[in-house]
Amino acid sequence: MTIKDKAAIVGIGQTAFAKRLEQSETELACVAIRDALDDAGIHPSEVDAMSAFTWESTEENEIAANLGFGDVRFFSRIGYGGGAGCATLLHLAMAVATGQASVGVAFRSRKRGSGARVWALAQERMSDVFKYSRPYGLVRPADEVAMLTRRYMHEYGMTRNHLANVALTCRKHANNNPAAQMHGKMLTREQYMDARWISEPLCLFDNCLETDGALACVIVPAERARDCRQRPVYIHAGSQGFTAPHPTMMNHFCDNPLDGPSWATGRGMWRNSDLKPEDIKVAQIYDAFTTLVPLSLEGYGFCKRGEGAAFTENGALEVGGLLPINTAGGGLSEAYVHGFNLINEGVRQMRGTSTNQVPGADACLVTSGEAVPTSAVILRN
Amino acid sequence: MTIKDKAAIVGIGQTAFAKRLEQSETELACVAIRDALDDAGIHPSEVDAMSAFTWESTEENEIAANLGFGDVRFFSRIGYGGGAGCATLLHLAMAVATGQASVGVAFRSRKRGSGARVWALAQERMSDVFKYSRPYGLVRPADEVAMLTRRYMHEYGMTRNHLANVALTCRKHANNNPAAQMHGKMLTREQYMDARWISEPLCLFDNCLETDGALACVIVPAERARDCRQRPVYIHAGSQGFTAPHPTMMNHFCDNPLDGPSWATGRGMWRNSDLKPEDIKVAQIYDAFTTLVPLSLEGYGFCKRGEGAAFTENGALEVGGLLPINTAGGGLSEAYVHGFNLINEGVRQMRGTSTNQVPGADACLVTSGEAVPTSAVILRN
Repeated sequence: MTIKDKAAIVGIGQTAFAKRLEQSETELACVAIRDALDDAGIHPSEVDAMSAFTWESTEENEIAANLGFGDVRFFSRIGYGGGAGCATLLHLAMAVATGQASVGVAFRSRKRGSGARVWALAQERMSDVFKYSRPYGLVRPADEVAMLTRRYMHEYGMTRNHLANVALTCRKHANNNPAAQMHGKMLTREQYMDARWISEPLCLFDNCLETDGALACVIVPAERARDCRQRPVYIHAGSQGFTAPHPTMMNHFCDNPLDGPSWATGRGMWRNSDLKPEDIKVAQIYDAFTTLVPLSLEGYGFCKRGEGAAFTENGALEVGGLLPINTAGGGLSEAYVHGFNLINEGVRQMRGTSTNQVPGADACLVTSGEAVPTSAVILRN
Repeated sequence: MTIKDKAAIVGIGQTAFAKRLEQSETELACVAIRDALDDAGIHPSEVDAMSAFTWESTEENEIAANLGFGDVRFFSRIGYGGGAGCATLLHLAMAVATGQASVGVAFRSRKRGSGARVWALAQERMSDVFKYSRPYGLVRPADEVAMLTRRYMHEYGMTRNHLANVALTCRKHANNNPAAQMHGKMLTREQYMDARWISEPLCLFDNCLETDGALACVIVPAERARDCRQRPVYIHAGSQGFTAPHPTMMNHFCDNPLDGPSWATGRGMWRNSDLKPEDIKVAQIYDAFTTLVPLSLEGYGFCKRGEGAAFTENGALEVGGLLPINTAGGGLSEAYVHGFNLINEGVRQMRGTSTNQVPGADACLVTSGEAVPTSAVILRN
């Protein structure tokens, strides 16, 4: 038995995305979940499963009490920040497909826009593997991904123009999405090239936004999905994954630092899928940093190792191109809510309601954070 | 499709239990997991799934790297401390039953013996529901459970003698278990009655031990289990649960503060089970506090509301009694590793290798922390 097409997303909800919202993270989570349930036409009292990030500051029991859920029979959390998004869907798909629960909500609520993390803070004595890198200046994720970026440039000839292809694609898509933080804010290649460094070779526009906001999805068994208000979006296949020897952001101790978690996750996902990479006509690729897109394109099998940068050429990632990505603007230009906005946009593509709709797309890959233990799903309509 | 008997525990491992161990929590976790894999006869490179507590201080990727796991394709965490134990088994059962993974390890590593938590510490401004109770003196879990205990005494006539029945049963069982921290340390009813209060009406012996230690189990699909070294112990059924209106330790805002999470968890578990409470001949009941045992006996359906205290009479909980519990000594007298030691003892009972073996027992209930969002499983041989 597998989870293939056994569960479907029948509701999505989201708050506004902004640099600063007044509500608490718990309030934002409740608003997004309530709206997702309304979208599905399911009463909160029917919810009996929840899945979220370990980095979530909200508590299951507070959300359940505030929204009026019934008995909750499944709840899970997934670690490693941006890697957790698609795993929340997979955990709930397993729970409803095996009858452990019947209505699940996956969510992410985060006030990173107004409550930016101070990365330079460190404990007096660091107890984990970061002690091998923090003292040498790799303080923020941007610094760590800058190292991977430099290595990838060195090994395979990627240039800043390739990274700009990713940033400009996301911005172009966001310009058509009224919900995007960067809606109405144009970005040219010249502006990209002139932007200040955040961590060389990553400039301002290689880095995701900082956002206050929350999103949620409702997951039910496939049989029930057919009776819901919205067109069901099936969870066809997916996997979590991290690759031996199990690095996180800094892969310096691996034989090949570019063998990121997307390789393990892709292997796990494709072996349970009826589809192949060539069947995917639209994708939402986790983009906390532009570099993660070419790395993910390779890991998930859209091209060979070292070909990810070239894959971005000739408008391949834009609507009308070979593989349109991040059609709501992604983390770079719609909102950075730890990649959960990629999930809701994947659902809209499968419903046919994206503001950058890809005609005829009947399967969408959604990925979570490359470079940390991660997850990915294929959605179908 | 359900998970009924689709996954089995084929290996268990544990470190020593002591007030102070020298190794780190990561080292202890690795030792317990390595020993569980040895017990199963499975090489670490085959492990592709992990489940643990959100309160775990170890990291999946560090454990995977240290033990030499392969690609990991499923990982989950469960919140609320002592409620998470059995949920780790359920998550892995779902993962291996649906083919998302093939070999899972569940574990808990904790140095609470040497690193006792200072409960009186609180943030300058408390942001959660604890702000309604902490300033009034409900600082530790013992204080909160003391309130539940008092209420239960008031409503249903429970006495300290009933609580002593639980404490003395666990100690008697621990006296036969060489691995128990209280092995060789006798406890009489007189000593119980004379003990100092921790939070009245809970005395020293109503409270669990403080322990350094780690435990782990290995879970594989049922088909594979038949080829493993040890007699398979099947995960027959189980559930997580918390009951609307979703209280945690302090249930003061509920209509009935005694309607704890075991009620929701029991409903979720029994509906997916071929067995009924009367089929269970041995149980491992979470016992961070003695009071949780009568409350759990009611929630899981072994007696009616209000009858849990009387159920403990006439040696009912001892080997030879109606429902022997905590046959290794439980959290009260074997070790308190957030209830995970109850799981390993449930496995030993089903293998027939307990030092307090219950003759003819072919199904064992294991429960996690009553009074917080929790979980339970029925194991079969």
